[in-house]
Amino acid sequence: MPLVRITLTPEFTADAQQSIADGVHRALVETAGVPPDDRFQVIEELPAHRLAWSPSYLGIERRGPVVFVQVFLNLGRTVEVKKALYAAIARQLAPVGIRPEDVLVNLVEVPRENWSFGGGLMSYEPQPAPAART
Amino acid sequence: MPLVRITLTPEFTADAQQSIADGVHRALVETAGVPPDDRFQVIEELPAHRLAWSPSYLGIERRGPVVFVQVFLNLGRTVEVKKALYAAIARQLAPVGIRPEDVLVNLVEVPRENWSFGGGLMSYEPQPAPAART
Amino acid sequence: MPLVRITLTPEFTADAQQSIADGVHRALVETAGVPPDDRFQVIEELPAHRLAWSPSYLGIERRGPVVFVQVFLNLGRTVEVKKALYAAIARQLAPVGIRPEDVLVNLVEVPRENWSFGGGLMSYEPQPAPAART
Repeated sequence: MPLVRITLTPEFTADAQQSIADGVHRALVETAGVPPDDRFQVIEELPAHRLAWSPSYLGIERRGPVVFVQVFLNLGRTVEVKKALYAAIARQLAPVGIRPEDVLVNLVEVPRENWSFGGGLMSYEPQPAPAART
Repeated sequence: MPLVRITLTPEFTADAQQSIADGVHRALVETAGVPPDDRFQVIEELPAHRLAWSPSYLGIERRGPVVFVQVFLNLGRTVEVKKALYAAIARQLAPVGIRPEDVLVNLVEVPRENWSFGGGLMSYEPQPAPAART
Repeated sequence: MPLVRITLTPEFTADAQQSIADGVHRALVETAGVPPDDRFQVIEELPAHRLAWSPSYLGIERRGPVVFVQVFLNLGRTVEVKKALYAAIARQLAPVGIRPEDVLVNLVEVPRENWSFGGGLMSYEPQPAPAART
């Protein structure tokens, strides 16, 4: 269910890109309950002048190359799971030579009913409407 | 109001890309109440090695080329409308030679106040704040 | 914290692209409380045939080149702030030669806990859970 968008600059070979994508997926499987075969990823490569990043925002010393990881996924992960996911993505990308400071992650959550993984079908049972919760 | 991102690999000619974009738009018009002239689409083409997809997740036999359709749209479509939209997108893409199993859709919903379609203006009346609902 | 995606066609030189990105960032700083050093942007360039836009939707006369600005940011901006932001982005892009009618903005809001800006850490204190609000 996650749709993962990895945005990076041309410093990385195709092999390194693959390792990055593998690492992000492993992090999702290990920490966020994503099934191993639930893998859908886009790797977007941009020239460096089209990727802007602050070298110091929040006191983190970024040097680049920076990797942006944007994950579209279902609602419901706890704060603890999200913290574990951020740590795991950074840890998984370290062997590729990416400093943890250069790994940026953004989660965009959607309700379960917002996915079709093929066949023209809604892939998951919808969640109860908010009104049903009160 | 929808902003549609269609992500695909280079198997498709420019004409086929156009047919895909046309078909996704027709599906939105037919099932989700989108006005015919409310069309804003990005077609993102990536080399195949930068688009990862599972050949079997959820028991759906994907063979590729896979087409990802991500739709940013206003909150408020019902589950039934979403189901009809998924079916319509898959049906519309079939004449281009894309198997329904290879069509993936993700919806990202935003409140109406989150759009400016030009002129520096908010395009729609904002929705009442959540507090007003209780 | 905003992650900004600017999508445009090849009419713009690298310098003009930079001016556009600068302008969008200034607008965010001026109207939406974004710290000056909180700048993370992707500029996505596409051939014109892969960017579809209506020349008349909502009665706005678009002529192109059109610039799409998609901003992923934290929840909590008021309607007034969003209106000011739309106006400011259009105003900032005018000196680059972009007509206000050709500037399209979409906001995608996420909770504060959905960001890691490096170091494998959650960057902001999470918001109280919805249940705590009732």
